[in-house]
Amino acid sequence: MDTAAKRLAWLPFLAREIPAGLATPADVARFELEQAGAKASLTVDPAMGEGWEISGDGITGGETGVLYGAYRLLMARAAGEAVPTGVQRPRYPLRMINCWDNAEGDIERGYSGRSLFFEGGRLSYDPARMRQLGRMLSSVGVNVLCINNVNVRDPAHRLIEDWLPELAALANIFRPFGVRLMVSIDYAQPMRHGVPTADPLDPQVQDWWTRQTAKVYEAIPDLAGYLVKADSEHRPGPFTYGRNHAEGANMLARALAPHGGVLVWRCFVYNCQQDWRDRVTDRPMAAYQHYSPLDGQFDDNVILQVKNGPFDFQVREPLSPLLLAMPKTRLAIELQLAQEYTGHQIDVYAMPPMWREVFDDMGADTVQAIAAVSNLGRDENYTGHPFAAANLFSYGLFAWNPDLSAEAVIRLWCRLTYALPADQEEALCRLLMESRSVYEQYTSPLGLCWMVNKMGHYGVGPDDYEFAAWGTYHRADRDAVGIDRTASGTGYLLQYPPALQARYADPATCPDNLLLFFHRLRYDHVMADGRALIQRIYDDHFEGYERAEAMAKTLAGLSLPSPDREEAARRMDMQLRNAREWCDVINTFFHRFSGADDAQGRTIY
Amino acid sequence: MDTAAKRLAWLPFLAREIPAGLATPADVARFELEQAGAKASLTVDPAMGEGWEISGDGITGGETGVLYGAYRLLMARAAGEAVPTGVQRPRYPLRMINCWDNAEGDIERGYSGRSLFFEGGRLSYDPARMRQLGRMLSSVGVNVLCINNVNVRDPAHRLIEDWLPELAALANIFRPFGVRLMVSIDYAQPMRHGVPTADPLDPQVQDWWTRQTAKVYEAIPDLAGYLVKADSEHRPGPFTYGRNHAEGANMLARALAPHGGVLVWRCFVYNCQQDWRDRVTDRPMAAYQHYSPLDGQFDDNVILQVKNGPFDFQVREPLSPLLLAMPKTRLAIELQLAQEYTGHQIDVYAMPPMWREVFDDMGADTVQAIAAVSNLGRDENYTGHPFAAANLFSYGLFAWNPDLSAEAVIRLWCRLTYALPADQEEALCRLLMESRSVYEQYTSPLGLCWMVNKMGHYGVGPDDYEFAAWGTYHRADRDAVGIDRTASGTGYLLQYPPALQARYADPATCPDNLLLFFHRLRYDHVMADGRALIQRIYDDHFEGYERAEAMAKTLAGLSLPSPDREEAARRMDMQLRNAREWCDVINTFFHRFSGADDAQGRTIY
Repeated sequence: MDTAAKRLAWLPFLAREIPAGLATPADVARFELEQAGAKASLTVDPAMGEGWEISGDGITGGETGVLYGAYRLLMARAAGEAVPTGVQRPRYPLRMINCWDNAEGDIERGYSGRSLFFEGGRLSYDPARMRQLGRMLSSVGVNVLCINNVNVRDPAHRLIEDWLPELAALANIFRPFGVRLMVSIDYAQPMRHGVPTADPLDPQVQDWWTRQTAKVYEAIPDLAGYLVKADSEHRPGPFTYGRNHAEGANMLARALAPHGGVLVWRCFVYNCQQDWRDRVTDRPMAAYQHYSPLDGQFDDNVILQVKNGPFDFQVREPLSPLLLAMPKTRLAIELQLAQEYTGHQIDVYAMPPMWREVFDDMGADTVQAIAAVSNLGRDENYTGHPFAAANLFSYGLFAWNPDLSAEAVIRLWCRLTYALPADQEEALCRLLMESRSVYEQYTSPLGLCWMVNKMGHYGVGPDDYEFAAWGTYHRADRDAVGIDRTASGTGYLLQYPPALQARYADPATCPDNLLLFFHRLRYDHVMADGRALIQRIYDDHFEGYERAEAMAKTLAGLSLPSPDREEAARRMDMQLRNAREWCDVINTFFHRFSGADDAQGRTIY
Repeated sequence: MDTAAKRLAWLPFLAREIPAGLATPADVARFELEQAGAKASLTVDPAMGEGWEISGDGITGGETGVLYGAYRLLMARAAGEAVPTGVQRPRYPLRMINCWDNAEGDIERGYSGRSLFFEGGRLSYDPARMRQLGRMLSSVGVNVLCINNVNVRDPAHRLIEDWLPELAALANIFRPFGVRLMVSIDYAQPMRHGVPTADPLDPQVQDWWTRQTAKVYEAIPDLAGYLVKADSEHRPGPFTYGRNHAEGANMLARALAPHGGVLVWRCFVYNCQQDWRDRVTDRPMAAYQHYSPLDGQFDDNVILQVKNGPFDFQVREPLSPLLLAMPKTRLAIELQLAQEYTGHQIDVYAMPPMWREVFDDMGADTVQAIAAVSNLGRDENYTGHPFAAANLFSYGLFAWNPDLSAEAVIRLWCRLTYALPADQEEALCRLLMESRSVYEQYTSPLGLCWMVNKMGHYGVGPDDYEFAAWGTYHRADRDAVGIDRTASGTGYLLQYPPALQARYADPATCPDNLLLFFHRLRYDHVMADGRALIQRIYDDHFEGYERAEAMAKTLAGLSLPSPDREEAARRMDMQLRNAREWCDVINTFFHRFSGADDAQGRTIY
């Protein structure tokens, strides 16, 4: 049971390892149904693709659909839930995980140990763990796995060169789970091979990619495609050659098109060498400025991948306006499971409530694909904090059906993973459902962002980014804090459609949790609830810490299995220290500026 | 000539490499005199020790004294100066350089390339360069070289174990230059060999050190001794066993005593895990609190090595009160040639004016030895910035004679190194003599300290240490800045003798450049010159930047030889950017707090 709980994530009832040699998703489905003692006939109808239907004792589905149906049936049984009726199809055809794993075996923003795929500058993995990972991904419907970091550092470029045989072997392992591989490529890769340029309009460059991509697809005919980070944070890209990103992306897309591959192009492009003295440039505006003029110019097999917010995975950001500005372009929304700015998988942070808001703001059909930065690593439990697995689980279900309720997904994860008594399950669900709001409240309750420790992004550092080149400023002074991003300020707000503009333009109607994202306000600004801004800053941080303490008490009362119980408790101690530090430092920081005493007389240092 | 200028530092007139095989200082002296065409007879009088006398055409001196006399004669000739008359003796018998070189070849706080002594986890050096270094050290009278970092990381402990033959070979190279080696040791070193403790009162520990030290002296009979950093910044030490530092140091001293070795014990001990909320603990008080009660308890061959200031090599600190509180203990003052907090050998920073102040404040006879953290590395010119060699040069001369004038030493270095036309020599001297004051003015003109970038200590970071565990706070708020360290505050001031207490206690008499070290003051505090504190902050930072610009102009007008000319110009560009950033960030930081506009209407961002 211990091993099962540790290694089997939310599938402790599938205790047998997947054997090598199962050839198709139907084979896997049969294996899983059998070990769970579920009698269900399988009928493969290729025309159904990823879709499936359960009726009576039978699962009918496409080649991968039968497996998704089988997992859904097994999870419903284990949870004591009814299976959905009618044909079930995913909303998005591409449901991707982006791993930021480096060939050396470290993971950029990885908080769960070293890479599952790489070590020592080469591919290196445990096949049994790959099959277990395939099972986990398939059970929640993830169908694309990009295994290497978008910052492609030597020697990871070799994945699509002389490492192709090993890459093909890995693809073979994941194929029976309906999981196709993707690779991140280096935009300047031809230059490693004597091509004197990476100009996308240069025939030599086009020719290199055409030929190399043909070799890639010869080895891995179902590769999902390439993922590219270009012209961002010192990565090479088409800007070097005076080309725009449509020209840059289309060149690669045309090399992929004959093979059915997609080109996923990240829109995380901004000036990371900004002068802090510059008050005109406003970093959240950058992606919209770069890409919206190019709408309609991208080939059909290009997908622009846009982060959910305009900054970079802060605890709260408004929806990226770019997502609403590209009606003639295929888009993917990019979420981040890795808790880079949200607690490093030390602090509890369940994401579904955030995703619910994001999809509601955006409209689920605004995008045609979905991606998430991985929180996986070589830790025994794959995700560092055992509860962080809830994010991977929930991501898969949301990617299949973005209309889901956050609470339903969380509850299903809790029930499958721990099978606690009803009151404890309820307590754990509430703890997880609250966790983002608690983290937000003790770190950045009013939408200010970036008061984080610059070294590693865990912990508080209110001025760490203030005089830096990253374009992320709060401009706090003795009177006020925040940046005016309305029409009277940087104009960022004008990038939104009118309805959202109206929602955010007036401090009186702007949600409190985004108030300081859009507005510069005096500390004596009266909030909707009648409190002064500075008092809200104090109250929220104190309350956030108190809620973290309450979470710790709740956690201590749960009869989780070992080692999750001890691991979660250990991390909760760290979270409480972190929360205390955030609360005290932020309150002190603003007290020093404002001189305003706390109305309740609590200690501010 | 280029090579000479690059590699021969201030001795370009000694262009011939020192050959291997010269056995004694007298041999070296003869070689140097001969190549310079200086006809002088040498008479060795062992009773004179390090002393020497030049009269007529003869140099009479002790075994090493003759070499010091020869170099002094050669430098005087080259500079067109008269040689001193009468017998010359050094003030301090131990004139030490502490290298912070790690066995892997990197240097902690090294800004001149990699280690001259280590690479890849072992001793690794160019013998010709060692001889050149021996010449440089000897020419200015340095007589002890500690080659490894006080933070002794694996495998550097092997220096006094299985690396002894290689260490002895290195000692042999330096011996003809009158330079004896010293090694930093790991206080817990016996525990690497099965001794279950490092308790200094444990007979097994005493026995291990006694036996190991005997082996060390068998290999290197003239080793100067051991250097120890204990109970500081996570280093092991006697506190672990409930012993005080006299007990800890004496144990090692007794192992060294039979062999004539000294035990140098660093007093850089403080709590590096301080809670920023704690307003009682005041880091500058720590060394005095730890050591002054132990005065008189140290063995005769123990030397307590005390940094010049109570913090850690900031651009300006008052004299460490500990230096004045140990009349019954042998002390060494520790200076830092490496420009850790003073510009990384990018910004020009000549130290003699600072040392002049330090010795005047302290009284040169307060200490019995002197040490300096090395600024040497494997760069072609040894010190990164060619002008940083002036600090090594001047340190040696001050260590010999702490009564020297800063300007005379700087001028001698300029003349020997560059032989510029008189007006240019004058300009370079002035530039160097001003350089510390310029750096101080654009970084920290009023004694505040620690507004430095926490990552690496180059560049500005006004709040980088403010909420950290290092005990280094400014506590700026909207009204005031600084920490009251007088009797009404932390009481640090009470650690000084009455005369210094009187000097610092009253803001009206405290020197401006230490005002915010000792006092917490409102921004509207009226300074001695009639300006408000906040206006002085602005004025000084603006003026500091303008003076840096003037330095750049002066530098551009000097006909330095290549590559020093280009190297100095390149670094000056970086210095100007650094100075601009310091000026603008600090002024902005305080403007945001104070809300006070600049009286001259200059731009504050």
